[in-house]
Amino acid sequence: MKEIIDKLRSFADERDWAQFHSPKNLAMALSVEAAEIVEHFQWLTQAQSYQMDADKLAAVSDEIGDVLIYLTMLADKLGIDPMQAALDKIGKNQKKYPAGIVRGQAKKYREYKES
Amino acid sequence: MKEIIDKLRSFADERDWAQFHSPKNLAMALSVEAAEIVEHFQWLTQAQSYQMDADKLAAVSDEIGDVLIYLTMLADKLGIDPMQAALDKIGKNQKKYPAGIVRGQAKKYREYKES
Amino acid sequence: MKEIIDKLRSFADERDWAQFHSPKNLAMALSVEAAEIVEHFQWLTQAQSYQMDADKLAAVSDEIGDVLIYLTMLADKLGIDPMQAALDKIGKNQKKYPAGIVRGQAKKYREYKES
Amino acid sequence: MKEIIDKLRSFADERDWAQFHSPKNLAMALSVEAAEIVEHFQWLTQAQSYQMDADKLAAVSDEIGDVLIYLTMLADKLGIDPMQAALDKIGKNQKKYPAGIVRGQAKKYREYKES
Repeated sequence: MKEIIDKLRSFADERDWAQFHSPKNLAMALSVEAAEIVEHFQWLTQAQSYQMDADKLAAVSDEIGDVLIYLTMLADKLGIDPMQAALDKIGKNQKKYPAGIVRGQAKKYREYKES
Repeated sequence: MKEIIDKLRSFADERDWAQFHSPKNLAMALSVEAAEIVEHFQWLTQAQSYQMDADKLAAVSDEIGDVLIYLTMLADKLGIDPMQAALDKIGKNQKKYPAGIVRGQAKKYREYKES
Repeated sequence: MKEIIDKLRSFADERDWAQFHSPKNLAMALSVEAAEIVEHFQWLTQAQSYQMDADKLAAVSDEIGDVLIYLTMLADKLGIDPMQAALDKIGKNQKKYPAGIVRGQAKKYREYKES
Repeated sequence: MKEIIDKLRSFADERDWAQFHSPKNLAMALSVEAAEIVEHFQWLTQAQSYQMDADKLAAVSDEIGDVLIYLTMLADKLGIDPMQAALDKIGKNQKKYPAGIVRGQAKKYREYKES
């Protein structure tokens, strides 16, 4: 992760691009790259989405790289560690959705709490 | 990263939720979480987006965690290493946008090539 | 449509909110509302997505209203007529995807042209 | 609007594409098109976003057409009238954000209620 952050900082500095990388702009770019992943899946059935051919997988891998790049840049600007943020969120989710109760249910927290 | 993947696999297995986690569905969830980040920035100026207060930053940190969680789950289902995908993409971008030429320009590759 | 535009202009003017409604910000808000629609569908099978109950449909209807509101505001700021834009795009698509050739294929234009 | 709905129904029927147009898939396509609008604005300042040149505006107009197309198709599948949905939502917003109180504030409802 540190290697990625260092490379991204150098990449932006060498091109004088940091001026464009406000958190607002990076959030937009992140959502655009996420949508480029969605585009590969939008007309597939769920079964087909497990069976992409090598060319499609390579294209999706590029988009996954792009999402991680913008996520890392955004987090770096805000002083957030994305790995720690994910671990913290997993911890919260473990409490929010106790395994014994929600097992096999696709309901979200609010619905689960209402039922 | 490996710790996150292991925790996410256990989390889904213990809740019998893997059935909902097709690549198609995970791509959708990823884009929804990316939009939840955007929501925090949509009415801010770029200057304001650098100066979020602690409460807002904590909320954005949670959303960054969510994006990384779904990105990791999606990549895991597809057999993709997101770190390697990001490093590969940075390598491609270094060739695509040579620092000496694009310095200070916010143009995309296509526009840059056309000019 | 004209009624909607007039109401949206008055709504923003009466609240002094036009200052926040740059095309950039409205584009962000539009994508956030689109994601709120996606959120209702992300864990459903395609079959289930045809059979939402009345409460869910009412919630989706609200989000559809939001998307149309921001789309109309964005188009209004840019001097674009969204109805005409849709009709023009349908015309382009009719030429791009000739019915006799693409019948039953889910391929996009590029793939279709390559095959 | 009715003309657009009729054209979209014929367009899909003539190509045997209705099979791909589940509400779930249409919601995904809608969000992808919304992101294609965002892509045009992501590196612009707010001032620049008011001053797009003719080529850019034509490209954005196409994307606005696409968003309205998928929004209309999704609403049609769900039996929702998007115009009525927007008018209903404007009515709700007029009650939720009373002009005399929120004037000039960019706060969202929850924050406004908390203050």
